[in-house]
Amino acid sequence: MNKLPEKTIGRLSEYRRTLLNCLAKGKTHIYSHELASLHNITPVQVRRDIMLIGYSTTLKKGYDVKALIDVIGDIIDTEDGLNAAVIGIGNLGKAITAYFNGKRSKLRIVATFDVNPDKTNRVISGVKCYAMADFEKMVKDLDISIGILTVPPEEAAQVTERLIMSGIKGILNYTSTSLNVSPNVYLEEYDMITSIEKVAYFVKQQNKES
Amino acid sequence: MNKLPEKTIGRLSEYRRTLLNCLAKGKTHIYSHELASLHNITPVQVRRDIMLIGYSTTLKKGYDVKALIDVIGDIIDTEDGLNAAVIGIGNLGKAITAYFNGKRSKLRIVATFDVNPDKTNRVISGVKCYAMADFEKMVKDLDISIGILTVPPEEAAQVTERLIMSGIKGILNYTSTSLNVSPNVYLEEYDMITSIEKVAYFVKQQNKES
Repeated sequence: MNKLPEKTIGRLSEYRRTLLNCLAKGKTHIYSHELASLHNITPVQVRRDIMLIGYSTTLKKGYDVKALIDVIGDIIDTEDGLNAAVIGIGNLGKAITAYFNGKRSKLRIVATFDVNPDKTNRVISGVKCYAMADFEKMVKDLDISIGILTVPPEEAAQVTERLIMSGIKGILNYTSTSLNVSPNVYLEEYDMITSIEKVAYFVKQQNKES
Repeated sequence: MNKLPEKTIGRLSEYRRTLLNCLAKGKTHIYSHELASLHNITPVQVRRDIMLIGYSTTLKKGYDVKALIDVIGDIIDTEDGLNAAVIGIGNLGKAITAYFNGKRSKLRIVATFDVNPDKTNRVISGVKCYAMADFEKMVKDLDISIGILTVPPEEAAQVTERLIMSGIKGILNYTSTSLNVSPNVYLEEYDMITSIEKVAYFVKQQNKES
């Protein structure tokens, strides 16, 4: 299969989240219009995404939840899984590590890193924290390919260079510093201010209407 | 001006983030292709968004950074500003409160809430933490219209009902529980797993190619 667009991957990941919730609630089948409504998109979009990954159903009761979870897993996950590290174990780093652990079997946070000696060589949020000085060695030893960046903004650019030099192939940047990376490294940036500003805009519109 | 689509607002917020960075670095003008490249989108998309908000330039040196920041502000911000609260002051709540404070003049986190008496009536991450028992009163007193949800997942649905009953108009949900809200409340959900899975997918593709 060809490389899918970023937005499709984002939606597939979100569908899986919803499907896992359905499964936990004992729901075995779901219609495209149900999935669409839960994600605020059109049923056509849902059906297009799911056809694109080669899944189809003739069942009148909709998609088989378990089967669809597996098909999405085949697209998104790697067979052996991928290892990620959190760099900077402040409040956000701790929250991410604790949130993520155990939620996906094929994607693991296997290490966290910090420069503060009070934090290193301890288990924090369920994962061992290593000294930043050992970063390159641990990336090799633990086969880490993804870096989740939660360092102070003024350190972000410099730490990113080090991540890339050590062979990290994908970076998720939670700092307020916009980063530049070479084309062979995949960068995803998340700025919580954008999420809050979207909410604020729609609240403002509603205040106008009422 | 009519209500703009969610995705446009998201991009405008991201442009402003970049423009504020440019300004801080002393850059006074920027081309649409520069903005586009920093956001991994096409220059056509950038020009369309910026035309849509009624800004244009005849300058050969591109958009005026400061003017464009102001125009985006007129679209996104409210004149008097909006007040937000963080509900659940664990690691993530602390990180969000600290990250956000002072970054935008028209959007403020004015309170945090928790059920833990060790946390209430104290200033945490620069903002006072109130008891959840006083939520309805404080929403009125402090004119809070946005709730940022960082409570444990099993409490998310119940707390959301309380937020809506108290008059909160916009919710940003950081918990792993998907929420349902009435159509007059704007809900934005962020699941960090989706961000990490996007990165993982592209790392997997690159491993295949190499």
